[in-house]
Amino acid sequence: MLATTGPIDLSTRPSDDTPGFEGAKKDARRLLPGIGDALMDSQELLFANGRAGTTERKVLILLQGMDTSGKGGTLRHVAGLVDPQGLKITAFKAPTEEERQHDFLWRIRRQLPESGMIGVFDRSQYEDVLIGRVRQLVPADEIERRYDEINAFEREFVDGGGVMLKCFLHISADDQKERLAERLEDQTKYWKYNTGDLDERALWPQYQQAYEIALERCSTEHAPWYVVPAGRKWYRNWAIATMLGETLDGLGLDWPAADFDVEEQKRRLATM
Amino acid sequence: MLATTGPIDLSTRPSDDTPGFEGAKKDARRLLPGIGDALMDSQELLFANGRAGTTERKVLILLQGMDTSGKGGTLRHVAGLVDPQGLKITAFKAPTEEERQHDFLWRIRRQLPESGMIGVFDRSQYEDVLIGRVRQLVPADEIERRYDEINAFEREFVDGGGVMLKCFLHISADDQKERLAERLEDQTKYWKYNTGDLDERALWPQYQQAYEIALERCSTEHAPWYVVPAGRKWYRNWAIATMLGETLDGLGLDWPAADFDVEEQKRRLATM
Repeated sequence: MLATTGPIDLSTRPSDDTPGFEGAKKDARRLLPGIGDALMDSQELLFANGRAGTTERKVLILLQGMDTSGKGGTLRHVAGLVDPQGLKITAFKAPTEEERQHDFLWRIRRQLPESGMIGVFDRSQYEDVLIGRVRQLVPADEIERRYDEINAFEREFVDGGGVMLKCFLHISADDQKERLAERLEDQTKYWKYNTGDLDERALWPQYQQAYEIALERCSTEHAPWYVVPAGRKWYRNWAIATMLGETLDGLGLDWPAADFDVEEQKRRLATM
Repeated sequence: MLATTGPIDLSTRPSDDTPGFEGAKKDARRLLPGIGDALMDSQELLFANGRAGTTERKVLILLQGMDTSGKGGTLRHVAGLVDPQGLKITAFKAPTEEERQHDFLWRIRRQLPESGMIGVFDRSQYEDVLIGRVRQLVPADEIERRYDEINAFEREFVDGGGVMLKCFLHISADDQKERLAERLEDQTKYWKYNTGDLDERALWPQYQQAYEIALERCSTEHAPWYVVPAGRKWYRNWAIATMLGETLDGLGLDWPAADFDVEEQKRRLATM
Protein backbone atom coordinates (compact mmCIF):
# COMPACT_ATOMS: atom_id res chain seq x y z
CA MET A 1 0.00 0.00 0.00
CA LEU A 2 1.68 3.17 -1.14
CA ALA A 3 1.29 6.44 0.66
CA THR A 4 -0.34 9.20 -1.34
CA THR A 5 1.85 12.08 -2.49
CA GLY A 6 0.98 15.13 -4.55
CA PRO A 7 -2.32 15.84 -6.28
CA ILE A 8 -4.76 12.96 -6.50
CA ASP A 9 -7.74 12.26 -8.75
CA LEU A 10 -10.00 9.81 -6.95
CA SER A 11 -12.18 9.29 -10.02
CA THR A 12 -9.31 7.46 -11.71
CA ARG A 13 -8.85 5.05 -8.80
CA PRO A 14 -10.92 1.86 -9.06
CA SER A 15 -12.57 1.03 -5.73
CA ASP A 16 -12.35 -2.72 -6.44
CA ASP A 17 -8.58 -2.71 -6.82
CA THR A 18 -6.55 -5.03 -4.57
CA PRO A 19 -2.99 -3.66 -4.49
CA GLY A 20 -0.48 -5.87 -2.78
CA PHE A 21 -2.77 -8.83 -2.49
CA GLU A 22 -2.05 -12.01 -4.43
CA GLY A 23 -4.94 -14.43 -4.48
CA ALA A 24 -8.71 -14.55 -4.28
CA LYS A 25 -11.36 -13.47 -1.80
CA LYS A 26 -11.40 -16.83 -0.07
CA ASP A 27 -7.65 -16.58 0.52
CA ALA A 28 -8.00 -13.19 2.21
CA ARG A 29 -10.81 -14.46 4.41
CA ARG A 30 -8.79 -17.53 5.27
CA LEU A 31 -5.71 -15.47 6.07
CA LEU A 32 -7.41 -13.06 8.45
CA PRO A 33 -7.47 -15.29 11.58
CA GLY A 34 -3.75 -16.00 11.16
CA ILE A 35 -3.04 -12.29 10.74
CA GLY A 36 -5.12 -11.77 13.88
CA ASP A 37 -3.00 -14.14 15.96
CA ALA A 38 0.18 -12.42 14.82
CA LEU A 39 -1.39 -9.00 15.51
CA MET A 40 -2.31 -10.01 19.06
CA ASP A 41 1.27 -11.06 19.71
CA SER A 42 2.76 -7.86 18.30
CA GLN A 43 0.21 -5.80 20.17
CA GLU A 44 1.03 -7.51 23.45
CA LEU A 45 4.62 -6.38 23.08
CA LEU A 46 3.49 -2.78 22.66
CA PHE A 47 1.00 -3.06 25.52
CA ALA A 48 3.56 -4.67 27.83
CA ASN A 49 5.99 -1.82 27.23
CA GLY A 50 3.20 0.68 27.85
CA ARG A 51 2.39 -0.94 31.17
CA ALA A 52 6.03 -1.16 32.13
CA GLY A 53 6.57 2.48 31.24
CA THR A 54 9.36 1.54 28.84
CA THR A 55 7.97 3.04 25.65
CA GLU A 56 6.36 6.18 24.34
CA ARG A 57 5.15 4.38 21.23
CA LYS A 58 1.46 4.28 20.37
CA VAL A 59 -0.40 3.64 17.13
CA LEU A 60 -3.45 5.45 15.82
CA ILE A 61 -5.56 4.13 12.95
CA LEU A 62 -7.62 6.95 11.54
CA LEU A 63 -10.60 5.96 9.39
CA GLN A 64 -12.27 8.33 6.98
CA GLY A 65 -14.64 7.66 4.11
CA MET A 66 -18.07 8.35 2.70
CA ASP A 67 -21.13 6.76 4.32
CA THR A 68 -21.13 2.95 3.80
CA SER A 69 -17.40 2.95 3.05
CA GLY A 70 -16.92 0.47 5.88
CA LYS A 71 -15.63 2.31 8.92
CA GLY A 72 -17.84 0.21 11.21
CA GLY A 73 -16.94 -3.01 9.41
CA THR A 74 -13.24 -2.24 9.80
CA LEU A 75 -13.72 -1.70 13.52
CA ARG A 76 -15.59 -4.99 13.85
CA HIS A 77 -13.33 -7.14 11.71
CA VAL A 78 -9.90 -5.53 12.09
CA ALA A 79 -9.92 -3.76 15.45
CA GLY A 80 -11.80 -6.85 16.65
CA LEU A 81 -8.69 -8.94 15.97
CA VAL A 82 -6.61 -7.41 18.76
CA ASP A 83 -6.82 -7.56 22.54
CA PRO A 84 -9.50 -5.05 23.56
CA GLN A 85 -7.48 -4.13 26.67
CA GLY A 86 -4.96 -2.40 24.46
CA LEU A 87 -7.50 -0.76 22.17
CA LYS A 88 -9.17 2.64 22.44
CA ILE A 89 -11.89 3.37 19.89
CA THR A 90 -13.40 6.80 19.45
CA ALA A 91 -16.28 7.61 17.11
CA PHE A 92 -16.48 11.34 16.43
CA LYS A 93 -20.01 12.60 15.83
CA ALA A 94 -21.25 16.12 15.23
CA PRO A 95 -19.52 18.25 17.91
CA THR A 96 -21.37 18.73 21.18
CA GLU A 97 -22.12 22.12 22.66
CA GLU A 98 -19.06 21.81 24.91
CA GLU A 99 -16.82 20.74 22.04
CA ARG A 100 -17.91 23.71 19.97
CA GLN A 101 -16.61 26.02 22.71
CA HIS A 102 -13.07 24.88 21.87
CA ASP A 103 -10.90 24.79 18.76
CA PHE A 104 -11.58 21.83 16.47
CA LEU A 105 -8.56 19.82 17.63
CA TRP A 106 -9.46 19.99 21.32
CA ARG A 107 -11.75 16.96 21.33
CA ILE A 108 -9.34 15.06 19.10
CA ARG A 109 -6.35 15.53 21.40
CA ARG A 110 -8.35 14.24 24.37
CA GLN A 111 -8.89 10.91 22.64
CA LEU A 112 -5.34 10.21 21.52
CA PRO A 113 -4.09 6.78 22.59
CA GLU A 114 -1.64 6.61 25.48
CA SER A 115 1.75 4.92 25.27
CA GLY A 116 1.35 1.21 24.60
CA MET A 117 -2.11 1.56 23.13
CA ILE A 118 -3.67 1.21 19.71
CA GLY A 119 -6.22 3.93 19.07
CA VAL A 120 -8.82 3.91 16.32
CA PHE A 121 -10.64 7.03 15.19
CA ASP A 122 -13.95 6.50 13.40
CA ARG A 123 -13.96 9.90 11.69
CA SER A 124 -11.49 12.48 12.97
CA GLN A 125 -10.06 16.00 12.73
CA TYR A 126 -10.56 15.67 8.97
CA GLU A 127 -14.32 16.11 9.28
CA ASP A 128 -13.52 19.76 9.93
CA VAL A 129 -12.04 20.16 6.46
CA LEU A 130 -14.52 17.82 4.76
CA ILE A 131 -18.08 18.52 5.89
CA GLY A 132 -16.68 21.81 7.16
CA ARG A 133 -15.64 22.72 3.61
CA VAL A 134 -18.54 21.21 1.68
CA ARG A 135 -21.21 22.66 3.96
CA GLN A 136 -19.28 25.91 4.44
CA LEU A 137 -19.61 25.62 8.19
CA VAL A 138 -16.78 28.09 8.69
CA PRO A 139 -15.21 30.80 6.48
CA ALA A 140 -12.90 29.66 3.66
CA ASP A 141 -9.76 31.17 5.22
CA GLU A 142 -10.43 29.25 8.41
CA ILE A 143 -10.60 25.98 6.42
CA GLU A 144 -7.30 26.92 4.79
CA ARG A 145 -5.64 27.41 8.17
CA ARG A 146 -6.90 24.05 9.39
CA TYR A 147 -4.80 22.00 6.98
CA ASP A 148 -1.66 23.48 8.47
CA GLU A 149 -2.98 23.10 11.99
CA ILE A 150 -3.74 19.44 11.32
CA ASN A 151 -0.24 18.89 9.95
CA ALA A 152 1.33 20.54 12.99
CA PHE A 153 -0.88 18.54 15.36
CA GLU A 154 0.03 15.26 13.65
CA ARG A 155 3.70 16.18 13.72
CA GLU A 156 3.43 16.65 17.48
CA PHE A 157 1.78 13.26 17.90
CA VAL A 158 4.49 11.55 15.87
CA ASP A 159 7.26 13.41 17.72
CA GLY A 160 5.76 12.06 20.94
CA GLY A 161 6.19 8.46 19.78
CA GLY A 162 2.98 8.03 17.80
CA VAL A 163 2.43 6.39 14.45
CA MET A 164 -0.63 7.53 12.54
CA LEU A 165 -2.14 5.26 9.90
CA LYS A 166 -4.53 7.50 8.01
CA CYS A 167 -6.81 5.34 5.89
CA PHE A 168 -9.20 6.77 3.35
CA LEU A 169 -11.71 4.02 2.60
CA HIS A 170 -12.31 4.62 -1.07
CA ILE A 171 -15.62 3.56 -2.62
CA SER A 172 -17.38 4.66 -5.79
CA ALA A 173 -20.76 6.35 -5.99
CA ASP A 174 -22.11 3.07 -7.40
CA ASP A 175 -20.72 1.12 -4.43
CA GLN A 176 -22.52 3.49 -2.11
CA LYS A 177 -25.78 3.25 -4.03
CA GLU A 178 -25.67 -0.53 -3.81
CA ARG A 179 -24.90 -0.50 -0.07
CA LEU A 180 -27.57 2.04 0.78
CA ALA A 181 -30.08 0.00 -1.25
CA GLU A 182 -29.06 -3.09 0.75
CA ARG A 183 -29.77 -1.25 3.99
CA LEU A 184 -33.21 -0.33 2.72
CA GLU A 185 -33.97 -3.93 1.75
CA ASP A 186 -32.94 -5.49 5.06
CA GLN A 187 -34.78 -4.72 8.28
CA THR A 188 -31.72 -5.82 10.31
CA LYS A 189 -29.89 -2.86 8.72
CA TYR A 190 -32.44 -0.07 9.08
CA TRP A 191 -30.65 1.17 12.19
CA LYS A 192 -27.59 2.00 10.10
CA TYR A 193 -29.62 4.18 7.77
CA ASN A 194 -30.20 7.90 8.17
CA THR A 195 -32.27 10.00 5.81
CA GLY A 196 -29.48 12.57 5.98
CA ASP A 197 -27.24 10.08 4.14
CA LEU A 198 -28.95 10.95 0.86
CA ASP A 199 -28.49 14.67 1.44
CA GLU A 200 -24.77 14.03 1.75
CA ARG A 201 -24.82 11.71 -1.26
CA ALA A 202 -26.28 14.54 -3.32
CA LEU A 203 -22.98 16.35 -2.66
CA TRP A 204 -20.80 13.42 -3.78
CA PRO A 205 -18.58 15.42 -6.21
CA GLN A 206 -18.02 18.16 -3.63
CA TYR A 207 -16.99 15.58 -1.01
CA GLN A 208 -14.64 13.81 -3.41
CA GLN A 209 -13.03 17.15 -4.13
CA ALA A 210 -12.74 17.97 -0.43
CA TYR A 211 -11.06 14.59 0.13
CA GLU A 212 -8.67 15.18 -2.76
CA ILE A 213 -7.62 18.50 -1.27
CA ALA A 214 -7.25 17.08 2.25
CA LEU A 215 -5.24 14.11 0.97
CA GLU A 216 -2.96 16.39 -0.99
CA ARG A 217 -2.47 18.98 1.72
CA CYS A 218 -2.13 16.56 4.63
CA SER A 219 -0.29 13.54 3.28
CA THR A 220 3.01 14.29 4.93
CA GLU A 221 6.16 12.34 5.44
CA HIS A 222 5.46 11.99 9.15
CA ALA A 223 1.78 11.09 8.68
CA PRO A 224 1.00 9.93 5.14
CA TRP A 225 -2.47 9.20 3.82
CA TYR A 226 -3.27 5.78 2.40
CA VAL A 227 -6.04 5.35 -0.15
CA VAL A 228 -7.49 1.95 0.67
CA PRO A 229 -9.75 0.60 -2.09
CA ALA A 230 -12.83 -0.42 -0.12
CA GLY A 231 -15.19 -1.68 -2.79
CA ARG A 232 -14.30 -5.20 -1.68
CA LYS A 233 -14.73 -5.58 2.04
CA TRP A 234 -12.40 -8.57 2.31
CA TYR A 235 -9.61 -6.61 0.70
CA ARG A 236 -10.17 -3.60 2.92
CA ASN A 237 -9.95 -5.79 6.03
CA TRP A 238 -6.88 -7.63 4.81
CA ALA A 239 -5.11 -4.41 3.80
CA ILE A 240 -5.67 -2.55 7.06
CA ALA A 241 -4.88 -5.58 9.23
CA THR A 242 -1.68 -6.09 7.26
CA MET A 243 -0.67 -2.43 7.57
CA LEU A 244 -1.30 -2.53 11.30
CA GLY A 245 0.78 -5.70 11.68
CA GLU A 246 3.67 -4.22 9.72
CA THR A 247 3.47 -1.04 11.77
CA LEU A 248 3.57 -2.90 15.08
CA ASP A 249 6.45 -5.09 13.97
CA GLY A 250 8.27 -2.01 12.72
CA LEU A 251 8.32 -0.47 16.19
CA GLY A 252 11.21 -2.80 17.02
CA LEU A 253 10.19 -3.27 20.64
CA ASP A 254 11.53 -5.90 22.97
CA TRP A 255 10.03 -7.35 26.14
CA PRO A 256 10.55 -5.03 29.12
CA ALA A 257 13.30 -6.13 31.46
CA ALA A 258 12.41 -7.06 35.03
CA ASP A 259 12.50 -4.05 37.36
CA PHE A 260 12.96 -6.39 40.32
CA ASP A 261 15.40 -9.10 41.40
CA VAL A 262 13.99 -12.24 39.74
CA GLU A 263 15.93 -14.73 41.86
CA GLU A 264 15.01 -13.01 45.10
CA GLN A 265 11.34 -13.13 44.14
CA LYS A 266 11.60 -16.82 43.29
CA ARG A 267 13.12 -17.55 46.68
CA ARG A 268 10.41 -15.60 48.47
CA LEU A 269 7.62 -17.25 46.50
CA ALA A 270 9.03 -20.70 47.26
CA THR A 271 8.55 -20.10 50.99
CA MET A 272 4.90 -19.08 50.68
CA MET B 1 -23.56 -21.68 36.55
CA LEU B 2 -25.50 -21.14 39.73
CA ALA B 3 -25.67 -17.83 41.48
CA THR B 4 -24.27 -17.80 45.00
CA THR B 5 -26.72 -17.49 47.87
CA GLY B 6 -26.09 -17.44 51.58
CA PRO B 7 -22.80 -18.07 53.36
CA ILE B 8 -20.01 -19.48 51.26
CA ASP B 9 -16.81 -21.37 52.10
CA LEU B 10 -14.39 -20.91 49.23
CA SER B 11 -11.97 -23.48 50.65
CA THR B 12 -14.48 -26.23 49.83
CA ARG B 13 -14.81 -25.18 46.20
CA PRO B 14 -12.35 -26.86 43.83
CA SER B 15 -10.85 -24.32 41.42
CA ASP B 16 -10.54 -26.96 38.69
CA ASP B 17 -14.23 -27.75 38.65
CA THR B 18 -16.10 -27.39 35.33
CA PRO B 19 -19.80 -27.03 36.20
CA GLY B 20 -22.14 -27.11 33.23
CA PHE B 21 -19.49 -28.18 30.77
CA GLU B 22 -19.69 -31.58 29.14
CA GLY B 23 -16.51 -32.58 27.36
CA ALA B 24 -12.79 -32.01 27.41
CA LYS B 25 -10.47 -29.02 27.13
CA LYS B 26 -10.12 -29.40 23.37
CA ASP B 27 -13.91 -29.25 23.01
CA ALA B 28 -14.12 -25.96 24.91
CA ARG B 29 -11.32 -24.47 22.84
CA ARG B 30 -13.00 -25.67 19.67
CA LEU B 31 -16.37 -24.27 20.73
CA LEU B 32 -15.13 -20.76 21.55
CA PRO B 33 -15.01 -19.35 17.98
CA GLY B 34 -18.58 -20.55 17.38
CA ILE B 35 -19.71 -18.98 20.65
CA GLY B 36 -17.93 -15.84 19.50
CA ASP B 37 -19.87 -15.64 16.24
CA ALA B 38 -23.17 -16.06 18.07
CA LEU B 39 -22.08 -13.46 20.66
CA MET B 40 -21.28 -10.92 17.92
CA ASP B 41 -24.74 -11.39 16.45
CA SER B 42 -26.52 -11.03 19.78
CA GLN B 43 -24.39 -8.04 20.66
CA GLU B 44 -25.21 -6.34 17.35
CA LEU B 45 -28.88 -6.49 18.25
CA LEU B 46 -28.17 -4.75 21.56
CA PHE B 47 -25.87 -2.21 19.93
CA ALA B 48 -28.37 -1.48 17.13
CA ASN B 49 -31.07 -0.74 19.68
CA GLY B 50 -28.70 1.47 21.60
CA ARG B 51 -27.88 3.47 18.48
CA ALA B 52 -31.54 3.68 17.52
CA GLY B 53 -32.47 4.84 21.01
CA THR B 54 -34.95 1.99 21.37
CA THR B 55 -33.53 0.31 24.45
CA GLU B 56 -32.24 1.11 27.91
CA ARG B 57 -30.62 -2.30 28.20
CA LYS B 58 -26.91 -2.60 28.83
CA VAL B 59 -24.75 -5.40 30.22
CA LEU B 60 -21.87 -5.14 32.66
CA ILE B 61 -19.42 -7.97 33.28
CA LEU B 62 -17.64 -7.38 36.54
CA LEU B 63 -14.42 -9.33 37.10
CA GLN B 64 -12.89 -9.83 40.51
CA GLY B 65 -10.28 -12.27 41.67
CA MET B 66 -6.88 -12.66 43.26
CA ASP B 67 -3.77 -11.80 41.26
CA THR B 68 -3.26 -14.25 38.37
CA SER B 69 -6.89 -15.37 38.53
CA GLY B 70 -7.24 -14.42 34.88
CA LYS B 71 -8.95 -11.05 34.64
CA GLY B 72 -6.66 -10.01 31.80
CA GLY B 73 -7.03 -13.35 30.05
CA THR B 74 -10.81 -13.08 30.23
CA LEU B 75 -10.65 -9.63 28.66
CA ARG B 76 -8.42 -10.89 25.88
CA HIS B 77 -10.24 -14.11 25.11
CA VAL B 78 -13.86 -13.37 26.00
CA ALA B 79 -14.29 -9.61 25.63
CA GLY B 80 -12.11 -10.06 22.53
CA LEU B 81 -14.90 -12.13 20.95
CA VAL B 82 -17.32 -9.23 20.56
CA ASP B 83 -17.36 -6.15 18.36
CA PRO B 84 -15.09 -3.61 20.06
CA GLN B 85 -17.42 -0.77 18.97
CA GLY B 86 -19.98 -2.00 21.47
CA LEU B 87 -17.52 -2.69 24.27
CA LYS B 88 -16.31 -0.45 27.06
CA ILE B 89 -13.53 -1.81 29.26
CA THR B 90 -12.43 -0.14 32.46
CA ALA B 91 -9.53 -1.29 34.61
CA PHE B 92 -9.74 0.17 38.11
CA LYS B 93 -6.38 0.82 39.73
CA ALA B 94 -5.55 2.35 43.07
CA PRO B 95 -7.71 5.52 43.24
CA THR B 96 -6.16 8.74 41.97
CA GLU B 97 -5.95 11.91 44.03
CA GLU B 98 -9.10 13.22 42.32
CA GLU B 99 -10.99 9.97 42.87
CA ARG B 100 -10.11 9.99 46.55
CA GLN B 101 -11.88 13.35 46.88
CA HIS B 102 -15.19 11.59 46.14
CA ASP B 103 -17.11 8.68 47.65
CA PHE B 104 -15.91 5.27 46.49
CA LEU B 105 -18.74 4.76 43.98
CA TRP B 106 -18.11 8.04 42.14
CA ARG B 107 -15.47 6.69 39.78
CA ILE B 108 -17.47 3.51 39.26
CA ARG B 109 -20.65 5.31 38.17
CA ARG B 110 -18.71 7.33 35.60
CA GLN B 111 -17.63 4.17 33.82
CA LEU B 112 -20.99 2.40 33.61
CA PRO B 113 -21.88 1.29 30.08
CA GLU B 114 -24.47 3.31 28.19
CA SER B 115 -27.60 1.80 26.66
CA GLY B 116 -26.71 -0.72 23.97
CA MET B 117 -23.20 -1.32 25.31
CA ILE B 118 -21.38 -4.16 27.01
CA GLY B 119 -19.16 -2.91 29.80
CA VAL B 120 -16.39 -4.87 31.46
CA PHE B 121 -14.90 -3.91 34.81
CA ASP B 122 -11.45 -5.26 35.57
CA ARG B 123 -11.74 -4.87 39.34
CA SER B 124 -14.61 -2.72 40.61
CA GLN B 125 -16.44 -1.20 43.56
CA TYR B 126 -15.64 -4.43 45.42
CA GLU B 127 -12.01 -3.45 45.86
CA ASP B 128 -13.29 -1.04 48.49
CA VAL B 129 -14.57 -3.90 50.63
CA LEU B 130 -11.69 -6.27 49.77
CA ILE B 131 -8.34 -4.51 49.99
CA GLY B 132 -10.24 -1.85 51.93
CA ARG B 133 -11.14 -4.44 54.56
CA VAL B 134 -7.96 -6.50 54.57
CA ARG B 135 -5.65 -3.50 54.69
CA GLN B 136 -8.01 -1.57 56.99
CA LEU B 137 -7.88 1.44 54.72
CA VAL B 138 -11.04 2.83 56.33
CA PRO B 139 -12.78 2.24 59.69
CA ALA B 140 -14.73 -1.00 60.13
CA ASP B 141 -18.12 0.73 60.33
CA GLU B 142 -17.44 2.42 57.01
CA ILE B 143 -16.74 -0.97 55.42
CA GLU B 144 -20.01 -2.23 56.86
CA ARG B 145 -21.95 0.64 55.31
CA ARG B 146 -20.36 0.00 51.91
CA TYR B 147 -22.01 -3.39 51.39
CA ASP B 148 -25.41 -1.74 51.58
CA GLU B 149 -24.31 1.15 49.41
CA ILE B 150 -23.05 -1.29 46.79
CA ASN B 151 -26.35 -3.17 46.85
CA ALA B 152 -28.32 0.05 46.45
CA PHE B 153 -26.05 1.21 43.63
CA GLU B 154 -26.41 -2.08 41.78
CA ARG B 155 -30.19 -1.99 42.25
CA GLU B 156 -30.21 1.42 40.62
CA PHE B 157 -28.18 0.15 37.66
CA VAL B 158 -30.52 -2.80 37.16
CA ASP B 159 -33.62 -0.60 37.49
CA GLY B 160 -32.18 1.53 34.72
CA GLY B 161 -32.07 -1.43 32.34
CA GLY B 162 -28.71 -2.90 33.27
CA VAL B 163 -27.72 -6.51 33.79
CA MET B 164 -24.71 -7.10 36.00
CA LEU B 165 -22.74 -10.33 35.65
CA LYS B 166 -20.54 -10.40 38.73
CA CYS B 167 -17.86 -13.04 38.25
CA PHE B 168 -15.50 -14.09 40.99
CA LEU B 169 -12.62 -15.86 39.28
CA HIS B 170 -11.85 -18.53 41.83
CA ILE B 171 -8.35 -19.97 42.03
CA SER B 172 -6.53 -21.80 44.79
CA ALA B 173 -3.37 -20.62 46.56
CA ASP B 174 -1.55 -23.40 44.68
CA ASP B 175 -2.87 -22.16 41.34
CA GLN B 176 -1.53 -18.73 42.16
CA LYS B 177 1.84 -20.04 43.23
CA GLU B 178 2.21 -21.91 39.96
CA ARG B 179 1.18 -18.90 37.87
CA LEU B 180 3.45 -16.47 39.70
CA ALA B 181 6.30 -18.93 39.27
CA GLU B 182 5.57 -19.06 35.54
CA ARG B 183 5.81 -15.30 35.34
CA LEU B 184 9.18 -15.42 37.04
CA GLU B 185 10.45 -18.07 34.63
CA ASP B 186 9.41 -16.30 31.44
CA GLN B 187 10.92 -12.97 30.42
CA THR B 188 7.88 -12.27 28.19
CA LYS B 189 5.81 -12.21 31.40
CA TYR B 190 7.97 -10.09 33.71
CA TRP B 191 5.83 -7.05 32.90
CA LYS B 192 2.84 -8.72 34.54
CA TYR B 193 4.73 -9.24 37.78
CA ASN B 194 4.80 -6.83 40.70
CA THR B 195 6.74 -7.41 43.87
CA GLY B 196 3.66 -6.22 45.74
CA ASP B 197 1.87 -9.36 44.52
CA LEU B 198 3.68 -11.41 47.16
CA ASP B 199 2.74 -8.99 49.91
CA GLU B 200 -0.90 -9.54 48.96
CA ARG B 201 -0.34 -13.29 48.68
CA ALA B 202 0.88 -13.29 52.27
CA LEU B 203 -2.65 -12.19 53.20
CA TRP B 204 -4.36 -14.99 51.23
CA PRO B 205 -6.66 -16.19 54.07
CA GLN B 206 -7.73 -12.64 54.89
CA TYR B 207 -8.59 -11.97 51.25
CA GLN B 208 -10.54 -15.22 50.94
CA GLN B 209 -12.51 -14.22 54.00
CA ALA B 210 -13.14 -10.74 52.63
CA TYR B 211 -14.41 -12.31 49.40
CA GLU B 212 -16.66 -14.69 51.31
CA ILE B 213 -18.23 -11.79 53.18
CA ALA B 214 -18.66 -9.68 50.05
CA LEU B 215 -20.18 -12.59 48.15
CA GLU B 216 -22.59 -13.30 50.95
CA ARG B 217 -23.60 -9.71 51.60
CA CYS B 218 -23.83 -8.62 47.96
CA SER B 219 -25.17 -11.61 46.07
CA THR B 220 -28.65 -10.25 45.57
CA GLU B 221 -31.56 -11.28 43.42
CA HIS B 222 -31.06 -8.29 41.16
CA ALA B 223 -27.29 -8.70 40.91
CA PRO B 224 -26.11 -12.16 41.94
CA TRP B 225 -22.51 -13.24 42.30
CA TYR B 226 -21.19 -16.16 40.29
CA VAL B 227 -18.22 -18.16 41.51
CA VAL B 228 -16.40 -19.13 38.32
CA PRO B 229 -13.81 -21.86 38.88
CA ALA B 230 -10.78 -20.39 37.15
CA GLY B 231 -8.11 -23.00 37.72
CA ARG B 232 -8.61 -24.11 34.13
CA LYS B 233 -8.40 -21.15 31.79
CA TRP B 234 -10.33 -22.83 28.99
CA TYR B 235 -13.23 -23.48 31.34
CA ARG B 236 -13.20 -19.90 32.67
CA ASN B 237 -13.37 -18.54 29.12
CA TRP B 238 -16.08 -20.94 28.04
CA ALA B 239 -18.18 -20.27 31.15
CA ILE B 240 -18.07 -16.47 30.95
CA ALA B 241 -18.63 -16.40 27.18
CA THR B 242 -21.61 -18.72 27.62
CA MET B 243 -23.08 -16.60 30.44
CA LEU B 244 -22.70 -13.48 28.36
CA GLY B 245 -24.39 -15.13 25.37
CA GLU B 246 -27.30 -16.33 27.47
CA THR B 247 -27.65 -12.89 29.01
CA LEU B 248 -27.73 -11.14 25.64
CA ASP B 249 -30.23 -13.59 24.22
CA GLY B 250 -32.35 -13.22 27.35
CA LEU B 251 -32.82 -9.50 26.72
CA GLY B 252 -35.43 -10.44 24.11
CA LEU B 253 -34.61 -7.55 21.81
CA ASP B 254 -35.77 -7.21 18.23
CA TRP B 255 -34.33 -5.14 15.38
CA PRO B 256 -35.32 -1.48 15.66
CA ALA B 257 -38.08 -0.47 13.27
CA ALA B 258 -37.32 2.12 10.59
CA ASP B 259 -37.94 5.67 11.81
CA PHE B 260 -38.30 6.82 8.18
CA ASP B 261 -40.46 5.94 5.18
CA VAL B 262 -38.57 3.06 3.56
CA GLU B 263 -40.33 3.22 0.18
CA GLU B 264 -39.84 6.96 -0.09
CA GLN B 265 -36.11 6.56 0.59
CA LYS B 266 -35.85 3.82 -2.03
CA ARG B 267 -37.49 6.08 -4.60
CA ARG B 268 -35.17 8.96 -3.77
CA LEU B 269 -32.07 6.77 -3.89
CA ALA B 270 -33.10 5.37 -7.29
CA THR B 271 -32.95 8.85 -8.81
CA MET B 272 -29.45 9.60 -7.53
